[in-house]
Amino acid sequence: MKFSQSSLTVGELATGQALSVPVFHIAGKDSHAPKVFIQANVHGAEVQGNAVIFQLMKQLEQMDVRGEVTLLPLANPLGINQKSGEFTLGRFDPITGVNWNREYLDHKTDIASWYQQHRHLDDKALIAAYRLQLIESCNAHLNSEWGVTTGKRLAVTLQSLAHQADIVIDLHTGPKSCKHMYCPEYDVAAASLFSIPYTLVIPNDFGGAMDEAAFCPWWQLTEIANSQGRRLKVPVAAFTLELGSQERIDMDDALNDAKGILAYLSQRGVVSEYVQAAEMARYACYLKDYKKFHAPIAGMVEYKAELGHILYSGETLANVLRLDRFGTHEELTELVLNQDCVPILHFASASVYQGTELYKVMTNLFKLNL
Amino acid sequence: MKFSQSSLTVGELATGQALSVPVFHIAGKDSHAPKVFIQANVHGAEVQGNAVIFQLMKQLEQMDVRGEVTLLPLANPLGINQKSGEFTLGRFDPITGVNWNREYLDHKTDIASWYQQHRHLDDKALIAAYRLQLIESCNAHLNSEWGVTTGKRLAVTLQSLAHQADIVIDLHTGPKSCKHMYCPEYDVAAASLFSIPYTLVIPNDFGGAMDEAAFCPWWQLTEIANSQGRRLKVPVAAFTLELGSQERIDMDDALNDAKGILAYLSQRGVVSEYVQAAEMARYACYLKDYKKFHAPIAGMVEYKAELGHILYSGETLANVLRLDRFGTHEELTELVLNQDCVPILHFASASVYQGTELYKVMTNLFKLNL
Amino acid sequence: MKFSQSSLTVGELATGQALSVPVFHIAGKDSHAPKVFIQANVHGAEVQGNAVIFQLMKQLEQMDVRGEVTLLPLANPLGINQKSGEFTLGRFDPITGVNWNREYLDHKTDIASWYQQHRHLDDKALIAAYRLQLIESCNAHLNSEWGVTTGKRLAVTLQSLAHQADIVIDLHTGPKSCKHMYCPEYDVAAASLFSIPYTLVIPNDFGGAMDEAAFCPWWQLTEIANSQGRRLKVPVAAFTLELGSQERIDMDDALNDAKGILAYLSQRGVVSEYVQAAEMARYACYLKDYKKFHAPIAGMVEYKAELGHILYSGETLANVLRLDRFGTHEELTELVLNQDCVPILHFASASVYQGTELYKVMTNLFKLNL
Amino acid sequence: MKFSQSSLTVGELATGQALSVPVFHIAGKDSHAPKVFIQANVHGAEVQGNAVIFQLMKQLEQMDVRGEVTLLPLANPLGINQKSGEFTLGRFDPITGVNWNREYLDHKTDIASWYQQHRHLDDKALIAAYRLQLIESCNAHLNSEWGVTTGKRLAVTLQSLAHQADIVIDLHTGPKSCKHMYCPEYDVAAASLFSIPYTLVIPNDFGGAMDEAAFCPWWQLTEIANSQGRRLKVPVAAFTLELGSQERIDMDDALNDAKGILAYLSQRGVVSEYVQAAEMARYACYLKDYKKFHAPIAGMVEYKAELGHILYSGETLANVLRLDRFGTHEELTELVLNQDCVPILHFASASVYQGTELYKVMTNLFKLNL
Repeated sequence: MKFSQSSLTVGELATGQALSVPVFHIAGKDSHAPKVFIQANVHGAEVQGNAVIFQLMKQLEQMDVRGEVTLLPLANPLGINQKSGEFTLGRFDPITGVNWNREYLDHKTDIASWYQQHRHLDDKALIAAYRLQLIESCNAHLNSEWGVTTGKRLAVTLQSLAHQADIVIDLHTGPKSCKHMYCPEYDVAAASLFSIPYTLVIPNDFGGAMDEAAFCPWWQLTEIANSQGRRLKVPVAAFTLELGSQERIDMDDALNDAKGILAYLSQRGVVSEYVQAAEMARYACYLKDYKKFHAPIAGMVEYKAELGHILYSGETLANVLRLDRFGTHEELTELVLNQDCVPILHFASASVYQGTELYKVMTNLFKLNL
Repeated sequence: MKFSQSSLTVGELATGQALSVPVFHIAGKDSHAPKVFIQANVHGAEVQGNAVIFQLMKQLEQMDVRGEVTLLPLANPLGINQKSGEFTLGRFDPITGVNWNREYLDHKTDIASWYQQHRHLDDKALIAAYRLQLIESCNAHLNSEWGVTTGKRLAVTLQSLAHQADIVIDLHTGPKSCKHMYCPEYDVAAASLFSIPYTLVIPNDFGGAMDEAAFCPWWQLTEIANSQGRRLKVPVAAFTLELGSQERIDMDDALNDAKGILAYLSQRGVVSEYVQAAEMARYACYLKDYKKFHAPIAGMVEYKAELGHILYSGETLANVLRLDRFGTHEELTELVLNQDCVPILHFASASVYQGTELYKVMTNLFKLNL
Repeated sequence: MKFSQSSLTVGELATGQALSVPVFHIAGKDSHAPKVFIQANVHGAEVQGNAVIFQLMKQLEQMDVRGEVTLLPLANPLGINQKSGEFTLGRFDPITGVNWNREYLDHKTDIASWYQQHRHLDDKALIAAYRLQLIESCNAHLNSEWGVTTGKRLAVTLQSLAHQADIVIDLHTGPKSCKHMYCPEYDVAAASLFSIPYTLVIPNDFGGAMDEAAFCPWWQLTEIANSQGRRLKVPVAAFTLELGSQERIDMDDALNDAKGILAYLSQRGVVSEYVQAAEMARYACYLKDYKKFHAPIAGMVEYKAELGHILYSGETLANVLRLDRFGTHEELTELVLNQDCVPILHFASASVYQGTELYKVMTNLFKLNL
Repeated sequence: MKFSQSSLTVGELATGQALSVPVFHIAGKDSHAPKVFIQANVHGAEVQGNAVIFQLMKQLEQMDVRGEVTLLPLANPLGINQKSGEFTLGRFDPITGVNWNREYLDHKTDIASWYQQHRHLDDKALIAAYRLQLIESCNAHLNSEWGVTTGKRLAVTLQSLAHQADIVIDLHTGPKSCKHMYCPEYDVAAASLFSIPYTLVIPNDFGGAMDEAAFCPWWQLTEIANSQGRRLKVPVAAFTLELGSQERIDMDDALNDAKGILAYLSQRGVVSEYVQAAEMARYACYLKDYKKFHAPIAGMVEYKAELGHILYSGETLANVLRLDRFGTHEELTELVLNQDCVPILHFASASVYQGTELYKVMTNLFKLNL
């Protein structure tokens, strides 16, 4: 089976040209199999997800696809095309500064009331009605009288597509980063089905990101239903995958990551073939234990700690060179942490202001069991 | 009496140079008179407040100053010095995109418990203890183990100074804007003491800005005290003044605005002299009625509505020129609103993406009585 | 007669989307009448030329058009869509820093040899052959083995169209500016046919801009022909018009400027109707007398000199406010020039580094006779 | 012997703060030994030169220094502190777009006349007089009536210091780059004294960069003197070293590069110790054979060719991924060159517009003999 291509309009440039996103679609042969939505490159510099989608399509076209699959690479044309010097300045709206991945809609539905009105429906009908309500809420927001911002239009347009799926995967990268993923607490078992060594276990709350926008309303509905004695499992799964460093395309590694995603999709019955996740030790930490270390002083930074490897308390994280202090004991400052951690990502530039977010490290890690 | 000058360090540049803010101080002769803190130019392009502080100092040095006055022009050296093309790109941190005026600290104190512990104090002692607690909370945040961001360091350093004052005024401007001010709901009578025609009445909540950071904890304390039968007035007043358009220095207009601020300070007993506010009609609207109108289409914009004047329903707000649609009925689109309003500010550029925040308008205005 | 619209591809964005420019064309009924090429908005923030082209089309569609007219508004889609904060950062390539209006091709033809080979042709044939050679040179450059830069592709694509015309007009604006135009020395009489009060008389050399790219090769050919006794007039006229300030659309003023251009076109026989240039005093200065005044100190700038009006020696050009020097004689520095001039434009921002180009002023002006 | 530190003011920020550069100086014990000037980080993201200067100072303080050494790390504070997103946007002036390394002064002295007036001097006096004249020309330029740009002030201030030296070394890096250096044609033998595998042999002309600004006037003087029968060797040597990739600090590698520079200084008698250059094959090409390969199409780029290694004709340079063309033969385009080359550097970002300078490659390389 081949993917068909269409185009999604997500905005308009000042010259009038449409901002459009390529949409790839395959119907799947079993309408009962889970529907999948995967997008990539919402942050402009985080390009590797496009290569992963490319490899995923190459693989899927050779496979027996049961569930509907919708893929949106290059999902943020404004962010991707926004250069500033030799790098892509695509992390936030260049006009407002708002992070492109914090613009998804919090529906703020009164879910308790909604459930009261729809509790008579069976599970399938309940889910269908709620899904429709989420999509309509997106559309209403997009058509509000006073308009919506550029970023909101992009995000909510993507979100209205994502709400149609049962599995939502948002492909990102860190700045300089090892592979890791975000997984909601209620679905932590799923993290072992991917081929990613580090998992951040996030609360089931809405924080503005796509994964949260996709699973939160469902988790909330499930909570209410369960509190009223109905046994309902959260019907939507959503994850953010951070596939290494930004500003990097590696086709071979993309194939690895595509296979990792296929392993999860295989487990979920989206494809008939069995695809095995890579064998590896998997570790996780809770979001509250994911620490941002900010540069205590400004200067030129030699990043020393290896990403994705344990750094013991007292070992060198980075060195800060301060030439203006040459000849003093502050000319070269060794930065250390006083607890064990695994550095997951570090800042992209080697010169920093005081306060720059230098490293993100996992602390209090625990092992995930397959 | 003359102002003395000192310097406040708020960060460090990558080269190691300190980011410093000039601080001007006059002691005041009466320790019972209110203490004043005024800062300007936290957003890099909003420079006119510096001229206002200049004129204010010139005036105050000729007056009988009773209350302590602390003035910080050029309060955000990183933002002010951040150019991008011919304009100042100083609205948000160039690395993170975070708005410099959304970084102030929410103390998240358990005020109820705190009050329980300190309710035995008389008003003066209670206020002193609470003030100290706010300042210590700022300092603790600045010294946190994992560090703080560049923007947090700037904001909380300024905030710790502001907490020492009874009157806090933050001088901003709009992009292209008429004069207006933000005033908390509990203190709306104060708006008539300034010389500013339009007032936004904001809720008593914390939203991240300096004015809110300054008055919120005090309003919350007062609420709790009052709920327990103590009659306490909110002891701190805080306002944001929006003094026209950004990227503009006008020394004569700055003198007018300085006099408007002096009118308020005079009423509050900060100076012995009587300074009269300008005679003018003053209007206000609630924040919920302050509407952002986003460009429904992209294009070249002719801004037509005059700022600070009523625009009746159906009158032209702006025209959008679309040359790619020349010869169709969409070549020139007239934008109108379907309710009366007063346009307060509009976007700085004449070419916009779809979704750009084009105008902010007040609706449901009401007259303020002097 | 109506304009027909087509689209010119000038590049490709990272997402793969084509960068395209709308092209409007009217054939003209007389193949002997001069052909006209007008473009606008090569610098992203200089939008008013689009409105002028709009008004020009509205007028021309009511007129008897004899010469072929080709109009390219929105000529630099990459530059126009490049925002940085609330302004358009479209003066230079965001990656390389190269000014979009310095990328036109210097053909570096050995014109003497070329003329030797073609001197036997009559004037009309000579001109046609030379024109063809210029266009082929553009095309060869665009197809060079190692590729061309993004900016070169845009510029040379536009240039190859411009070379087909006899009259080339490039519509720009200053930052904050009064109306003025660039006119080559050999064609200074033409400046009186427009409705623009100030003219810069530029040498007949190539400096990288569109107007120079259009007329230089022709002036050089004419020089060689004339030196060999042939009486040839420069067959191509080219001008840059600076129509006020950037980031501004004014439809009424655009109509005025369209009429000014029509006055020139009328004189040249492009339209049958007689259109009169506005009556006004017109002044000019040589490029060598067009002075850039750089900020001698940094600070907050109050621009005082009125653009387009004479400023006598010793009068205030601008004031520079330095709050860090409050209380000293350097707190407010008055900037003056020691010769008479007419300030033509000033910097867009009110805060400047030392060395910022603060004003451009004409000195040694002389009156142009109609 | 220890380095002494002072500070050089090179401009002023909008807030009034001085832009200053740390200057490290050691006198040297032999006034006849060559004087050395080394600067680093004129392009903001090219930080590794600072670490090299650090290591150089550490080494020199242990050595017997004969010639005067002046070192300026962090030479462009404005560029270094200019962030845009997570990277340093320090390649060009953010206001004007002018490359910081194209602002050095072309003295445009009439050297022939100057030599006529000074030919009676002996070599030492001639050189001293000429040196003085170059420095005075810099100073005159800095003090010109209409002021100078921010970039010119920085460059010419640095240049006036560099003119005092006999050996000028400017430390840069490429974007993603292997080590290489620029060496003037007349001094190509010097390239073998450093520890750098690839050398660009540049003409003896002025192109705006520091190395050219330092050696050109001397080469021109020498040419004239020699043409009049005087045997004069070019008394000043100047090189640009490109020490790997930008946004990278590596202290160990910096020590290697410091030793490479010491090897040259040792040969020139600046230090008494003998320091041997690393043994390696060294290759060079002429600037005309240093080719820029521009992206023939836009897209996501997988950089394949290894920097600093030969790439044979027809081998893959890079792949360009175009997801909008998925399913066609243009979905993944392999870029190849039709001649052998050594790729020296490539673009920093993995997504490119059409026309982006993708690779710089050396062609027609030849071996340098030690």
